[in-house]
Amino acid sequence: MADEGQWQPHQLPQLKAELKRIGITIPAERLADLSKHPMSAIVSLDGCSASFVSPDGLVVTNHHCAYGAIQRNSTAEKNYIANGFLAKTRAEELPGGPTTRVYVTDKLENVTARVNDGLDKLSGKERYAETKKRIKALIAECETDKNYRCSVPAFHRGAEYYRIRQMMIKDVRLVYAPPESIGNYGGDIDNYEWPRHTGDYSFLRAYVGKDGKPADPSPDNVPYKSKDFLVVSAEGLKAGDPILLAGYPGRTSRYKLPVEIRYARDLSYPAMVADYQADLDAIAAATKGKDNDVVRYASVVKSINNRMKKTQGLLDGFARKDIAAIKDVQDAEFRSWYGKQPNASAAMLAELDADIAADMALSDEEFAYGVATYSDLLKSARTLYRLALEKQKPDADRESGYQERDISNIKGRLSRLEQSLVPAVDEARYVAGLQRYGKLPAKSHPQWLDNLVPAVADVPALYQQSRLADTATRLAWMDKAPADFEKSDDPFIKLAVRMHGVAMSLEERRKEVDGNLEKIVPQYMGAVIAWKKSQGKPVYPDANSTLRVTYGTVSAYSPRDGVTKGPFTTVEGIVEKYTGKEPFDAPKALLDAVKAKRYGQFKDPVLGTVPVDFLSSADTTGGNSGSAIVNKRGELVGLNFDSTYESITKDWYFDRDITRAIHLDVRYMLWVMKEVDHADNLLKEMTIKYPKQ
Amino acid sequence: MADEGQWQPHQLPQLKAELKRIGITIPAERLADLSKHPMSAIVSLDGCSASFVSPDGLVVTNHHCAYGAIQRNSTAEKNYIANGFLAKTRAEELPGGPTTRVYVTDKLENVTARVNDGLDKLSGKERYAETKKRIKALIAECETDKNYRCSVPAFHRGAEYYRIRQMMIKDVRLVYAPPESIGNYGGDIDNYEWPRHTGDYSFLRAYVGKDGKPADPSPDNVPYKSKDFLVVSAEGLKAGDPILLAGYPGRTSRYKLPVEIRYARDLSYPAMVADYQADLDAIAAATKGKDNDVVRYASVVKSINNRMKKTQGLLDGFARKDIAAIKDVQDAEFRSWYGKQPNASAAMLAELDADIAADMALSDEEFAYGVATYSDLLKSARTLYRLALEKQKPDADRESGYQERDISNIKGRLSRLEQSLVPAVDEARYVAGLQRYGKLPAKSHPQWLDNLVPAVADVPALYQQSRLADTATRLAWMDKAPADFEKSDDPFIKLAVRMHGVAMSLEERRKEVDGNLEKIVPQYMGAVIAWKKSQGKPVYPDANSTLRVTYGTVSAYSPRDGVTKGPFTTVEGIVEKYTGKEPFDAPKALLDAVKAKRYGQFKDPVLGTVPVDFLSSADTTGGNSGSAIVNKRGELVGLNFDSTYESITKDWYFDRDITRAIHLDVRYMLWVMKEVDHADNLLKEMTIKYPKQ
Repeated sequence: MADEGQWQPHQLPQLKAELKRIGITIPAERLADLSKHPMSAIVSLDGCSASFVSPDGLVVTNHHCAYGAIQRNSTAEKNYIANGFLAKTRAEELPGGPTTRVYVTDKLENVTARVNDGLDKLSGKERYAETKKRIKALIAECETDKNYRCSVPAFHRGAEYYRIRQMMIKDVRLVYAPPESIGNYGGDIDNYEWPRHTGDYSFLRAYVGKDGKPADPSPDNVPYKSKDFLVVSAEGLKAGDPILLAGYPGRTSRYKLPVEIRYARDLSYPAMVADYQADLDAIAAATKGKDNDVVRYASVVKSINNRMKKTQGLLDGFARKDIAAIKDVQDAEFRSWYGKQPNASAAMLAELDADIAADMALSDEEFAYGVATYSDLLKSARTLYRLALEKQKPDADRESGYQERDISNIKGRLSRLEQSLVPAVDEARYVAGLQRYGKLPAKSHPQWLDNLVPAVADVPALYQQSRLADTATRLAWMDKAPADFEKSDDPFIKLAVRMHGVAMSLEERRKEVDGNLEKIVPQYMGAVIAWKKSQGKPVYPDANSTLRVTYGTVSAYSPRDGVTKGPFTTVEGIVEKYTGKEPFDAPKALLDAVKAKRYGQFKDPVLGTVPVDFLSSADTTGGNSGSAIVNKRGELVGLNFDSTYESITKDWYFDRDITRAIHLDVRYMLWVMKEVDHADNLLKEMTIKYPKQ
Repeated sequence: MADEGQWQPHQLPQLKAELKRIGITIPAERLADLSKHPMSAIVSLDGCSASFVSPDGLVVTNHHCAYGAIQRNSTAEKNYIANGFLAKTRAEELPGGPTTRVYVTDKLENVTARVNDGLDKLSGKERYAETKKRIKALIAECETDKNYRCSVPAFHRGAEYYRIRQMMIKDVRLVYAPPESIGNYGGDIDNYEWPRHTGDYSFLRAYVGKDGKPADPSPDNVPYKSKDFLVVSAEGLKAGDPILLAGYPGRTSRYKLPVEIRYARDLSYPAMVADYQADLDAIAAATKGKDNDVVRYASVVKSINNRMKKTQGLLDGFARKDIAAIKDVQDAEFRSWYGKQPNASAAMLAELDADIAADMALSDEEFAYGVATYSDLLKSARTLYRLALEKQKPDADRESGYQERDISNIKGRLSRLEQSLVPAVDEARYVAGLQRYGKLPAKSHPQWLDNLVPAVADVPALYQQSRLADTATRLAWMDKAPADFEKSDDPFIKLAVRMHGVAMSLEERRKEVDGNLEKIVPQYMGAVIAWKKSQGKPVYPDANSTLRVTYGTVSAYSPRDGVTKGPFTTVEGIVEKYTGKEPFDAPKALLDAVKAKRYGQFKDPVLGTVPVDFLSSADTTGGNSGSAIVNKRGELVGLNFDSTYESITKDWYFDRDITRAIHLDVRYMLWVMKEVDHADNLLKEMTIKYPKQ
């Protein structure tokens, strides 16, 4: 059981013996208390994890988690991406921008009864609506204090709901980032790969008003007094040492049924990979020889590539190990146990299977809809028309994503589109998508959609006549009424209006299906939890971007017979990979320090040099980026930032033999700070335990 | 110093402490005695190594070393390459053919004085001729008994000469070979690679006359009574265990000067690799779309590819580690020590440098000559004319390679050419070579050669008019006189006659250069040996196909930071690589046994399964194929068959961090014999020590 599990902190006392066995000395009860060190030092950046490392609100996270803040402050003259940034004084710290926020989880309440009770008689769609309504009310009740953000995520696929309150610190500043040639050494080539030599760290600082409470960004704000913060240990780890990892993992699917795995493996994922590749091909063909267009689509291409690599990694993992067969055995064992329980319900299992079948069939239609609507201009028109329609309702009744709180996000998205849009390329992607849509199985085509999608031959005219590629025009539509859309002659606005019925029909059916699943899956998961409990095993819920703790050991793995990878890389490996060109460029000062063996206090006694990254068996996923890795005493020894390619399948099944997370070794971070970037002010601010000489 | 060194057996007592330190329990004095077990069980196959493993002349070696014997006995109906071969009784054993011989080294004499004394006044060419003459005489004196083959190889680049007598067993039969899908699993793709899963072993048996003495192959012969043979240990090794390796390593260049390394690294090897690639390109273009021609050139292409991979491996190794710089330091240290010796001679060092410079300049011309003469028909014509000329002399005076003893070899080569010759492809290679020759630096063009090589436009006519592509015609020229050649109108014969002067001039100059080197290098090496001796270090001579012993430990290595390879692979890795297609096909019986975990007594306690291949730090090179790997007690535990890609540079410099030889684990061999091939008769014949259960 060791290693697997993204545990809610309050579950840790159940794992007391296990934690002790691997050598963790912090009492499990202490780890369960969010108000106490070390959990009180762990924070969320919304999509990434981080932790306080000084009493003055200094936060350490990944370079790629602070990337937005670094980019925002960079200009051609002051290129902090390329050259790094270091504020030598607090006055030099730079505003992180509106999306850089620190969230400190301070309260958790089990609200399962308030969400789930008394819904059993409702239809799927009614249940969906009622659940959303109750959750909204729970959030509103909690968010009366504007310094907090509240959420009510489902756990165990809806068997439990918790209301989580997080203090939201809005003034977060950039303190220090190494150059990209350290912070992103290896770049996309090394993404998901080992050996890894990335110094993926950066420092931010949380600021609050003089009253100590969150405040809008202002020069008058003062550093947040983070009474609890992690001590940094430069004493290091060795193979076999235990570690704890705390952060905000995003999403896993560990409790899917075998039929869902087979659907993903045999149908859905292969279709997605093929579609990603076809879209990449369309972009490549349309931008060929046009350097400006290539640049404009670079981030789109990068994002598609990243999703494709991850999806392909899942398929490769499924091919390597028959996870469906493993789940078959577990499922059969569960059903056999369940059948013997006094309250067993064959109808529940039958309904579960039917609801999952409906989910998969609808997913096929949603995928086909996506393939038929690849155009960014069409998507913008759809968003704008939907917004106009939703604005007709009272704010509380609007679909989430179209409420007043969401307007600035929508505006930002519609505005930023100009950075990654070339109408001719958008046209090519749309045409290619329509052609692929035509080849998808007829039963996946949503009803009426075939009558609405334009003929390929008519697409060029849409782009010639539409004025939506102009940002000002696009934004102006945000303030128009539904009637304005319905009488517009802009071809994409017209198309959006015409397609609205089909899109809404898919959305309504999704709500019905999800509502049915929300009813049945919690019953199923309740039975699974009872089954596990009967075996004396605690059950961790799937990741859902809430605070979790996982533990494991520093350990190598064997990707294939006769080869072992990890657990450590060293600074010598940077020189080994160095080409002088991105992504294998490195600062001269770093290369010189390695050459001179200037390891200082960060030399590992076993490796004889400075470690860079290391592997552990901890159970992580996306969202765990920046998560603190602490040693048995709760001292910071690393930052999580990636996992190996062979581990990608862990989102579905944790295979302890090959699942490894990739962590930055803080000794490398401290070494760079001392020998390369001379961040002495920060080294002084942190409490660092050095090894005995 | 550990691991490095291909020691002459008589040197081992000097390494007594070292052998004891790594855990070898056989006394060093015993290892030095060729007449005693275990050295008396080690034999040569002329190009490969092998060992006796039963008192009845049963010999084990690599599959690739017995390949000729397997191929010779294979037909379309009885395809022993594909299906393997097992003689269940002695009567079923098959003749290995005239090139399959077993040589047992029985006597070694230091004849340095008889070769080197009194030559100092001679010119290079005179010295060369006199040395060859003395060696021929030493051999003739020794070969009076026709059951022995004698040789007088140079050690330490000529500082020492030994006369070696080997009993020559001419009746050697094929006993057992696994199918190629075991014996050559991984094929060329895995050549020089790790992880490796090759079952590279086969069994032969030595037969002699009823009098116990070597005899020509005959049904009346009886198995050779090999009183000493290796006990086979199935007890296995683990990481860190010591091993000894005994065999006949071919050639190394460990004592080259820095200038020689730079010449190879910067000029000679890059030129060779480019030339190999250009020749491969010419063959590919000329055979494209012609399946029969592709097949005919398959072995030529394979051989060029193999040489290219090895040469490229050397270049990659030189790029990875600045061996020239390491040698610079050693050379400077030596010269500093040498300068202080009473008999130091600055003239000796100056002459050495001058002779080496002359060697390199001549090598450039020889290379250019090779590029200008790529035609197999021209090469055949050259051989035939040379033979006619040499035949004019008494046998003893002829150039070696053209004596009576060589006639059958020449005939074989000229005859076998038909299997790998297509005139149109030969023409294309010749034309491409001539074009490359034209682009080589003018100073590398041998004098007069530019006037003799045909214009590219004239080449097609040569091929149209020559009758040398016909095997019978080619062979008929073997019996003709020089005058017949000189009046022939066959264009390639005419060309060979015309080019004779240039070729002989290169040969004469080579003798002069080599004669000078034979005089000066031994003086230099003598000084180097004295220098090492002054530091208390024994010096092993470069490999020269004579019996050597090396030792090391079973050990993994790191090809790059964060990755470890070895030391073991397992049978599960065969399944992992299995594709069902060559070279990753495997017998069903083997796959089934792995699947059923039918490991029997061959399960390694640490690995929990049957090991296949393993790595050790022993110092090997080509010719060590088939070498016995014995454990600390002298029991057979493996067979050497390859080394890793990173190790290729070891021919020049032994880097203990990355140099690893690849060995077959005998436990895999025994497991296949038992579980897959059911070679119970041989398992019974050998003395096998099984682990205690």
